[in-house]
Amino acid sequence: MSAAPSSELLSKLFGAPAAEGCLGDRARLQGMLDFEAALARAEARVGLIPAQAAQSIGRQCRAELFDLAQLADGTEKAGNTAIPLVSALTSLVGADDPGAGRFVHFGATSQDAMDSGLVLQLREYDGHLSADIERLCKALALLARTHKESVLPGRTWLQQASPVSFGLKAAGWLDAMQRHAARLSEWRARALVLQFGGASGTLASLGNRGLEVAEALSRELDLALPALPWHAHRDRIAELAAVLGLLAGTLGKMGRDISLLMQTEVAEAFEPAGEGRGTSSAMPHKRNPVAAAVALAAATRVPGLVATLLAGMVQEHERGLGGWHAEWETLPELASIVAGSLHHMAEATEGLEIDAAQMRANLAAKGGVALAEAATAVLAPRLGRPQAHEIVGRASRRALETRKTLLETLASGPAVTAHVSRADLAAALEPGAYLGMAAAFIDRVLAAHDEEER
Amino acid sequence: MSAAPSSELLSKLFGAPAAEGCLGDRARLQGMLDFEAALARAEARVGLIPAQAAQSIGRQCRAELFDLAQLADGTEKAGNTAIPLVSALTSLVGADDPGAGRFVHFGATSQDAMDSGLVLQLREYDGHLSADIERLCKALALLARTHKESVLPGRTWLQQASPVSFGLKAAGWLDAMQRHAARLSEWRARALVLQFGGASGTLASLGNRGLEVAEALSRELDLALPALPWHAHRDRIAELAAVLGLLAGTLGKMGRDISLLMQTEVAEAFEPAGEGRGTSSAMPHKRNPVAAAVALAAATRVPGLVATLLAGMVQEHERGLGGWHAEWETLPELASIVAGSLHHMAEATEGLEIDAAQMRANLAAKGGVALAEAATAVLAPRLGRPQAHEIVGRASRRALETRKTLLETLASGPAVTAHVSRADLAAALEPGAYLGMAAAFIDRVLAAHDEEER
Amino acid sequence: MSAAPSSELLSKLFGAPAAEGCLGDRARLQGMLDFEAALARAEARVGLIPAQAAQSIGRQCRAELFDLAQLADGTEKAGNTAIPLVSALTSLVGADDPGAGRFVHFGATSQDAMDSGLVLQLREYDGHLSADIERLCKALALLARTHKESVLPGRTWLQQASPVSFGLKAAGWLDAMQRHAARLSEWRARALVLQFGGASGTLASLGNRGLEVAEALSRELDLALPALPWHAHRDRIAELAAVLGLLAGTLGKMGRDISLLMQTEVAEAFEPAGEGRGTSSAMPHKRNPVAAAVALAAATRVPGLVATLLAGMVQEHERGLGGWHAEWETLPELASIVAGSLHHMAEATEGLEIDAAQMRANLAAKGGVALAEAATAVLAPRLGRPQAHEIVGRASRRALETRKTLLETLASGPAVTAHVSRADLAAALEPGAYLGMAAAFIDRVLAAHDEEER
Amino acid sequence: MSAAPSSELLSKLFGAPAAEGCLGDRARLQGMLDFEAALARAEARVGLIPAQAAQSIGRQCRAELFDLAQLADGTEKAGNTAIPLVSALTSLVGADDPGAGRFVHFGATSQDAMDSGLVLQLREYDGHLSADIERLCKALALLARTHKESVLPGRTWLQQASPVSFGLKAAGWLDAMQRHAARLSEWRARALVLQFGGASGTLASLGNRGLEVAEALSRELDLALPALPWHAHRDRIAELAAVLGLLAGTLGKMGRDISLLMQTEVAEAFEPAGEGRGTSSAMPHKRNPVAAAVALAAATRVPGLVATLLAGMVQEHERGLGGWHAEWETLPELASIVAGSLHHMAEATEGLEIDAAQMRANLAAKGGVALAEAATAVLAPRLGRPQAHEIVGRASRRALETRKTLLETLASGPAVTAHVSRADLAAALEPGAYLGMAAAFIDRVLAAHDEEER
Repeated sequence: MSAAPSSELLSKLFGAPAAEGCLGDRARLQGMLDFEAALARAEARVGLIPAQAAQSIGRQCRAELFDLAQLADGTEKAGNTAIPLVSALTSLVGADDPGAGRFVHFGATSQDAMDSGLVLQLREYDGHLSADIERLCKALALLARTHKESVLPGRTWLQQASPVSFGLKAAGWLDAMQRHAARLSEWRARALVLQFGGASGTLASLGNRGLEVAEALSRELDLALPALPWHAHRDRIAELAAVLGLLAGTLGKMGRDISLLMQTEVAEAFEPAGEGRGTSSAMPHKRNPVAAAVALAAATRVPGLVATLLAGMVQEHERGLGGWHAEWETLPELASIVAGSLHHMAEATEGLEIDAAQMRANLAAKGGVALAEAATAVLAPRLGRPQAHEIVGRASRRALETRKTLLETLASGPAVTAHVSRADLAAALEPGAYLGMAAAFIDRVLAAHDEEER
Repeated sequence: MSAAPSSELLSKLFGAPAAEGCLGDRARLQGMLDFEAALARAEARVGLIPAQAAQSIGRQCRAELFDLAQLADGTEKAGNTAIPLVSALTSLVGADDPGAGRFVHFGATSQDAMDSGLVLQLREYDGHLSADIERLCKALALLARTHKESVLPGRTWLQQASPVSFGLKAAGWLDAMQRHAARLSEWRARALVLQFGGASGTLASLGNRGLEVAEALSRELDLALPALPWHAHRDRIAELAAVLGLLAGTLGKMGRDISLLMQTEVAEAFEPAGEGRGTSSAMPHKRNPVAAAVALAAATRVPGLVATLLAGMVQEHERGLGGWHAEWETLPELASIVAGSLHHMAEATEGLEIDAAQMRANLAAKGGVALAEAATAVLAPRLGRPQAHEIVGRASRRALETRKTLLETLASGPAVTAHVSRADLAAALEPGAYLGMAAAFIDRVLAAHDEEER
Repeated sequence: MSAAPSSELLSKLFGAPAAEGCLGDRARLQGMLDFEAALARAEARVGLIPAQAAQSIGRQCRAELFDLAQLADGTEKAGNTAIPLVSALTSLVGADDPGAGRFVHFGATSQDAMDSGLVLQLREYDGHLSADIERLCKALALLARTHKESVLPGRTWLQQASPVSFGLKAAGWLDAMQRHAARLSEWRARALVLQFGGASGTLASLGNRGLEVAEALSRELDLALPALPWHAHRDRIAELAAVLGLLAGTLGKMGRDISLLMQTEVAEAFEPAGEGRGTSSAMPHKRNPVAAAVALAAATRVPGLVATLLAGMVQEHERGLGGWHAEWETLPELASIVAGSLHHMAEATEGLEIDAAQMRANLAAKGGVALAEAATAVLAPRLGRPQAHEIVGRASRRALETRKTLLETLASGPAVTAHVSRADLAAALEPGAYLGMAAAFIDRVLAAHDEEER
Repeated sequence: MSAAPSSELLSKLFGAPAAEGCLGDRARLQGMLDFEAALARAEARVGLIPAQAAQSIGRQCRAELFDLAQLADGTEKAGNTAIPLVSALTSLVGADDPGAGRFVHFGATSQDAMDSGLVLQLREYDGHLSADIERLCKALALLARTHKESVLPGRTWLQQASPVSFGLKAAGWLDAMQRHAARLSEWRARALVLQFGGASGTLASLGNRGLEVAEALSRELDLALPALPWHAHRDRIAELAAVLGLLAGTLGKMGRDISLLMQTEVAEAFEPAGEGRGTSSAMPHKRNPVAAAVALAAATRVPGLVATLLAGMVQEHERGLGGWHAEWETLPELASIVAGSLHHMAEATEGLEIDAAQMRANLAAKGGVALAEAATAVLAPRLGRPQAHEIVGRASRRALETRKTLLETLASGPAVTAHVSRADLAAALEPGAYLGMAAAFIDRVLAAHDEEER
C-alpha cells in the first residue's frame, strides 16, 4: 500500500482522462525506459554497443516488469528514481542476456533518463490537452454564435451595468483560450527537446562520440537536439507550469462567471445536469455548479504550484539540490489538475443551458435602471450631456425608491417628454438596442477561430 | 487503476511513516465513517434513533468495506466524497438491518462528516509529528551539548566570519524546533474540535435537539465542541498549514546548512551514510546529502501549498465553491511532505558525522583572517579602536596576498609587537578563545529543552 | 525621486492609518536608531562606554536627520541599510562630540540593528492592528446581537439552502476574528524579543560582557531577551506573516460574503455609502463594494507574500543570502495590506446596512423551496422519512415548474393534508421557525466575546 | 507623507534604472493621461468631438499637473485611480476651456484608461528590460568564449563531479537568457494592445461608432487593436508576470552559482568589487556577493508575486472585484524587482573575476578523485567495465583515506599498470582532457547568440 496521500477517491473529480496514462508512476517509469531503449538503439547505430545488446535492453524496457514498492525503497536511498530503475533494468537484461547488462544506460546519467522521460510524458500530455482546448473552443464558438443576441446584464463590481450579450461573454472566454493554445504551441517548439549530458553535462564518458550519440538519440526519440544539455536550467519545465497557470486562470474565471450565473437569485445559466450530477435529492431546486467548483479549486491550487516550480529553478551548479526534487511531484500534480479543470469545463460548456428569458427578466428587475447610460445617451444630444446626466440620475433613484421602471419615471416628467417621445425612449431603453459593438466583437473572435480551424 | 498522478515511487523519499495510515484515501474514508458511527451512537444515546440502529451502522463503518473506484465515480458526480460514501454506507447498513438504513447520517450534512473526519485524521497525524519533533529535539540537544567547543567558521553571506561552535549551530536549530512544538500545541488546543452543523450550520433538521446531539457527539469523538459550526471558516485548517510551513522552513534551513557543510570543499559534516544511502559507486568520494535534498525540496514546495490553503479561505456564505475543494488534496500533501522532511532530517541529525579537525583546518585556511575581529579586539585597548582597525585591516590584506597567516603578519610589525606580545596575540587569535557567549547561549537553550523534557 | 514603484496613489485605498508611521522608511530608520541609542545607554550603564558618549549618540538618533537618497546609495553598495546608517550616524555624532563617534554601534552587527529595529516597528504595528481587530469584533458582536432573528437564505455552492439568520453569519465572522486575536497574542509573547549577537551571533567582540550588555539592552528596549540570537532563524518573522495571512483570509471571506449580498439581484446588505464612496453618478443604482474589493484584493495578494516569507526562511549559516533580503520589503508590504483590509472592513462593518425585508423576499422568491428540508422534517414523523422525502421532492419540483409556492403545492395534495393541516404546514415552512440552534450558537460566541471584553 | 510602506531606502539595491520612470505613480498617471489625450484626438479625428476640445484636453494631460495626495483620497473613495484623475482632469480642462470639459474621457470607462495606460508603461519597461537582457547576453557570450578551457569541478548535489569548463557554465546561462528574450518577444506581440470597451465592454455609449473610434485610438497610441476588449481577461498581464518569473529564476540560479563560487572555501569567481561594494573594513578578506543576494532575493520574492497575478485572473463577469485590484501594486513591484535583479546581475557578469588557478586547485584538492569517471573510462576498454569500475572505486576510497592522489594510488598497483602506463593514466586524469563535448556545446550556444546579434 502506498504511503502517499494521493487520492484515488478524488482522481475523477479533479483529474481528466487526458492525464491518465501519461502522468502516473507507470508512465514515469515508461518514459525513462523509453529513453534507455532509445539510447541503446542509438549507441548500437553508431557502433558503440552491439546491436544485439540494444535489442536485449529494448525487450526489458516495459514498465510493467518493475516492482513499484521495491523501486520506492531504492529511491529513498538513492535520492532519485533512475538509480534503482537502471539497477533493476540491468539485472533484468543481464538475466536474459548476460553480456548485455553492462551496456544499459551507457554514458548517461540519472537525470538524462528522468528529464528525457519527462519530456516524452509531456509530449503525450500536450496532445491530450490540446485536443481538449480545441474541444472547448468549438463549444465556446457555438455559444458565441448562438447567443449573439441573448442580452443579459453586464456586471461590474458584481453590480448590474450596461447590458452585454451572452455571446460576447462566450467570445471573451474563447479569445483567451485561443491565446492559451498559441502559448502552448510556442512552449512545444521550445521545450520538447532531448536531455542528454552524462555526469556533469559534457558527455565526457563517451569520449569524442558524445554529440554523435546525442544526435542519433534525438532522432530515435523524435525530439529536437538543444544547443546544450539543460539539466540545471529548468525554464522549459517552469514555462509549461506558467502556461498551465494562465490556462487555469481563464478556466477559473469561466467557473466563477458560470457559478455566479447559476446562483438561485440569478439563474441565467446552468451546467448540464446529467444523471445525479450536482443535484440534491433533499433540495430538488439545487443545481450545484460542480464543474465550476472543479475549475475554481484548480485556479486556487495552481498559482501555488506554479510558484513552486519557479522557486525550484534556483538550482545549484550542475545538478540542483532540492529545487529539482521539488519538481517531481509538483509538475504532474499541476498538469493533472489543469487537465481536469479543462476537461470538466469543456463538458460543462458543451451542455451549458441558457435561460435567455431570465436574463431579460433580471435586466428588467430593478426597473431597468441598468440602462441608465442608454437613457443618458438618448437625451444628451437634446439636453446637453450634463443635464441629461442629472435628469437620468434623479429618475433612476426615484425609480428604485418607488419600484417603478426607469422608462415610466422618465416618461412621466415633461423635462424629458418635451424632447423625446415615450416611444423613442422605450426603444432606447430596449436592452437589445444598447449592445454597441458586441456583435462585431464576436465576429472578430469567431473569424480568428474559424481561421484556426481551417 | 488510478488516474491520479500521485507517486508511490516517491512516497518513501518524500514521505514519512508518520504520514502513512492517517493521510491516505483509506484514512479519509475511515475518518468519515468514524464520524458516522459516533453520530449514530450519540443520537441513540439521546434517544433520537434506536440503539440497535446505531449498532448496525457502527458495524459497517469500516473503510475496507468500500470500493474506492466506485466512490471515485460518485465523487465526480456529487462533487464531494461524503455523498457517495453515505449512500454506499446506507446500502450496506440496509442490507444488514433493513430498518437501520434511514438512520444513517441523520441530521448531518456531507461537510460535517468530511470536516470532523479530517479532524480525526489530523489528531493522529499530530501525534506522530510531535513524536518526530521530540526525536529531532533530543538529537539536536545532544549535538549542542557534545559540540559546545567544536569551533568552526561562522559564515555570513557565505563568507567566513568570526568563529562559532557547532554546538551553537545545533542550539539555534533546537531553539527554533522548540518554538514549532509550542505552535503546534497552541494549534491543537484551538483546532481539534467537532464540526457538526447540518445543511446550513443551524442543525435545524434536529429541531430543538441539535445542541444536545452535538454535545453527545463531541463526547463520543473526544473532540471539543466549538462555539459554533465552522464549515465555512477555514482558519483552523489553514493555521495547521501555516505551522507546518514554519516547521518546513526551519528544516529547510537545516538542510541548507548541512548540505553546505557537506560540500567537497568544506567537508565539515556528513549525513549518515547507511547502506548505499547517497553514495555513488561511480564516484566513491561522493556523499550526497539526500536528507538535505528532501528537506530543501519540502521547503521549496511547502510555501506554495500554504499559500493555496490561505487563498482557499475565501469561501462563499455557508459552503465554499472551489476554496473548500482546494483543501482536499493540498492539506494531506502538505502534511505528508512536512512529515517526510522532519522524519528524514531527524534520522540525519541522529547520525550526523562531524569532522572537527576539518572545521579548524577551514578556519586556518585563509591565514586565519576570519579572526580579524579578534585581533582588533585585542589591539583596541592598547592602540585605540580606529588605529587597531586599520592595522588589522592592512595585515589581513597582506596575509591574503602573501599567503601567510594573520598572526605571522601582525607579529612581524613593530607597530603591533610594541604593544602586544606574540604569545598574547597567538592566544587572542586562537579560534576557541573567541567564542564569546556561545557556551552560555547553548546552555540557555538546553535549559529550556531539559525543562520541556521533564 | 524614488525609483521604487510603490504607490502613494493607492496608499489610502489599500493601506490603513494603523500602518502609517510604523512601516515606512522613516520608521525603519527610527527603529534602527532607537536600537543604537539604547545600545549606547546599555553599554554606558554597564561601564563599557562613557555616559557622555551615550548621550551624544542618543542626541543624533532621530530619523529626520538623515538623507534617504544618500542612504539608498549606500545601501546599494553595502547590501544592507544599517551599514550606511551607522556610518552616517557616526559622522553626525563625531561632528557633535569628537570622542563619541567610535562608540557608535559598539559590539553590534548590522543585523542586530535591523532586526531589533524591526521588532520595535512591529510592536507598534501590533498595537494598532489589535485595536482595529477589537473594533471590528465590537461591530460584529453588535450585528450578531441585533440580527439574531433576521432570517435569510443559507447558501451552499451559491445555491439557496435552509435558512440562517444574519446574526449567525456575523457570529461566525466574529468567532474567527477572536481566534485571530488569540494567535496574535501568542505570536507577541514569542516574537517581541531582542536581537543582539554581533558579527556571528556570539557577541565575541564584547569579550565576557556580552550577556550583561544584552540584558541591559533588552531592559532599555523593554524587549524580552531570547535564549540566543536568532538572526538566521526567521520563524518569528514568518509567523507574523502567517498570522496576518490567516486574518486576511477571514477578512477576504467577509468581503466575498458582503459583495455577494450586495449583488443587484440579491441586495440584502450594503456597505455604508459615505460621501461618494462606491457610488457612480452615471449609474445611480450602483453601490460598489469598495471595502469588499479591498479585502478581496488583500486576500488575493497576501498568500503569495506569506509564501515569500516562508520561502525566505531557508537562510544560510549565520546570515542568509537572499532569503533575509527578501523580507525587507515583503513584510512591511504584507503588514500594510492586512492593516488596510482590516481597517476598511471594520469601517464597512460598523456602517453595514441590512435589508431584512429583502432577505425574506429572496427566501420566498423560488416558492420557498429552500425550506424543503423543513417540510420533510414535519412530514417524516407522520409518513416515515423516505416517503416524506419523496413527496417533498416531487412537490418542490412542481412548485418550481408551476411557479407556485411549496406550501401551496404541498397543501393541494391529500397525501399531505391527510396528515398535516395547512396551518401546521405553513408554520413549519415559516423560515424563522427553522433556524435550529442559530440563536444558541450566536449566544455562545457572544459569551466568549463578552468574556474577552471584560 | 505617504502611508505606503514602499522603500526609497531599498530602491537602488533592489531596483534598476530600467524601472525608474516607467513604473512609479507619475508614470501611472501619465499612462492614463496619454490614453485620455489620444482618445480625445481619435474622437476629434472621426468627428465625434471638436478638434479644439481635443487640443484643450491634450494640454492638461501632464502628470505633473496633478496632486498625488488628493488623488489618493479620491482613489480610496472611488475604488480606482481613474475616477479621481478624470474628475481632476475635467476640472483642469474646464478651467482652461469651459466647453471642452464634457469631452474628457468621452465613451470610455475607468478601466480603459487604466489598462491602456498600463500597456503604455509596459511598452517602455519592455524596451529597457530587453536592452539589459541583451547586455547580459553579450557579457555571458564573452565569458563563454574566454573560458572555454577554464576547467573547474562540475558539482552535482554540491559534491564535486566530473569537470566542466567555466565557459560551459556561462553558455548554459546564456542559452537560458536567449529563451527568455524569445518569450518576451512572443509576449510583446500578444500583449501590447489597446483596451477600450466602455462601461461593459460593448462601447455602446458611442452608438455605432465604437469600432471606428477604437481603430483611430489604436493608431494614435500605436497599439494593435485586439479582437475584443479584454478588461476582465487578464492573461496578457499574467503572462508578463510569468515571463518575468522565468527570467528571475535563471537570474537566481546565476546568483546561487556565483555566490557558491565566491565562498571562502571555493573562491573561484568574484563579483566586481567596485568602491566599497560588498567589502567590509572589519573583515578585509570578505567579498560579499551583493548582486547575487539581490538576484536570490528577487528569485525568492517573484514566485509569490507571479502566483498573486495568476490567482487574480479569476475576475467576475465584466469587471473583477479584488482580482483586478490585486494587480495594481503587484505588477509594478514584480517588474521592478526583476529589472533590478537583471541590472545587478548584468553588472556583476560584466565585471566577474575568474580565478582559473583556484579552479584547478579545487579539482586537485581531494586527490583528484573527481576524475574517477575518467579513470574508469580509460581502464574499461582494457579490463572490462565492471572490473575497471571496481578498481577505480577502491582506489578512490584509498586515495581519500591516505590523502594521496588518485593517479598515484592507481599507478601504484600492478592490476592497473599491467594494462595502462602511468603516463597514459596521467593524461587521462588531466581534467582539461575530460571535458567531452563542452567546447562543442559552447559553440552551438554562441552560434545562436551571434545569429541573434546579426
